Amino acid sequence: MGSALPPLTPGRLRLYSMKFCPFAQRTRLVLVHKNIPHEVINVNLKHKPKWLFEKNPKGLVPILEQDNRIVFESLICDEYLEDMYPEKPLRPSDPYIKARQNILEGYFEQVLRSLYSTMFTRNPEKKLRGRENLLKSLEIYETELEGKFYGGDEVGMLDFHLWPWIERIYTISHITGLEFSVEKFPKMNAWIQRMYQTPAVKATALPGEVHAAFLKSLMDRSPNYEIEVPASRL
Amino acid sequence: MGSALPPLTPGRLRLYSMKFCPFAQRTRLVLVHKNIPHEVINVNLKHKPKWLFEKNPKGLVPILEQDNRIVFESLICDEYLEDMYPEKPLRPSDPYIKARQNILEGYFEQVLRSLYSTMFTRNPEKKLRGRENLLKSLEIYETELEGKFYGGDEVGMLDFHLWPWIERIYTISHITGLEFSVEKFPKMNAWIQRMYQTPAVKATALPGEVHAAFLKSLMDRSPNYEIEVPASRL
Repeated sequence: MGSALPPLTPGRLRLYSMKFCPFAQRTRLVLVHKNIPHEVINVNLKHKPKWLFEKNPKGLVPILEQDNRIVFESLICDEYLEDMYPEKPLRPSDPYIKARQNILEGYFEQVLRSLYSTMFTRNPEKKLRGRENLLKSLEIYETELEGKFYGGDEVGMLDFHLWPWIERIYTISHITGLEFSVEKFPKMNAWIQRMYQTPAVKATALPGEVHAAFLKSLMDRSPNYEIEVPASRL
Repeated sequence: MGSALPPLTPGRLRLYSMKFCPFAQRTRLVLVHKNIPHEVINVNLKHKPKWLFEKNPKGLVPILEQDNRIVFESLICDEYLEDMYPEKPLRPSDPYIKARQNILEGYFEQVLRSLYSTMFTRNPEKKLRGRENLLKSLEIYETELEGKFYGGDEVGMLDFHLWPWIERIYTISHITGLEFSVEKFPKMNAWIQRMYQTPAVKATALPGEVHAAFLKSLMDRSPNYEIEVPASRL
């Protein structure tokens, strides 16, 4: 699945991605939503090629490249795309609504910390505590969801920035036992169904068994980038 | 120095701050630069008042408040001010230059991690290693400084976001032994002198002995918010 580096085509936007990477999915969601013409190079992150570090010293995806321009870090990539392609805007134009969405986005760090700590520990007690912390850290997203989407009546940037991890938590709950129940998270469960109807999620979401297989390989400290992905997915 | 909570004046912008807090200084720099009318409430962070947590659940400054609007987190406060008060813009209008500045800003997390780890350890070896890491993490800011400011010919948002920690590192180097030498950092040393000429830094910078006294109290795990600040400073 890792690709050698094909030469750039002048003017064409390229995304360096990895099929199972939630950070890269953030940027793929924006690319699909805005119908931005682009090509995708999937990078083998097990044997990271040297050219990857020349583009991003941290050796991580997503990375956007177009002619002599390189942008990385998922949030920065998405803001760059929003600025470059203002059609179908994803950020609210009201500065205060934007600021409050940014604050809500900031809390997601806590979700990610809890998620990764519960995922990678082999200590059953820590695993349990991690799950509780994870569910607790998600409560604010249940409380603060007022409209159809975090972006309001239409899907917005915050929806796309949260989605990749919610998709994973939601689709593999039968394996992890981390139940994302309709009772505790009624608004988020309805939001998940709405998100699945958006073209961007339709084009990028993966089934639970794929997420589960990749997650298992991650937890075994031997990530498997060869897992098959449905052909309909980008 | 901690204040009770005086009632808000309708329409007036208020900043909750703390005189020695580098995060709050980021927002004070933007307020001064843009000549935004505002009032400052300095919060006693040793005995945090209950109302502080009602405004920001994390109980941290800076916080902006105006009528029923509340914004916190230094980077989000500054973006909010930039959006609300577009005069004297601090963000580049070119999306690519903006993205590259955001990437450079992101590296500052590493500077802060090194800084706080070297500051608070009592292990001499760790202290030494921390200092080396700190100087190493600053090298990219020397390399990437191409114009007069990080913002280009004029002072910009990135300058203000880096400045509070550089001011502290620079002014107390004779105490910490962390030499920010002209030989190793020629461009940054020249930048520091230029920054001291900007109205925003003139209005908010504190002398080394004040920073040193507050830092000492922090390291003694007994922060002293009563240290005198020159009357000319905001």
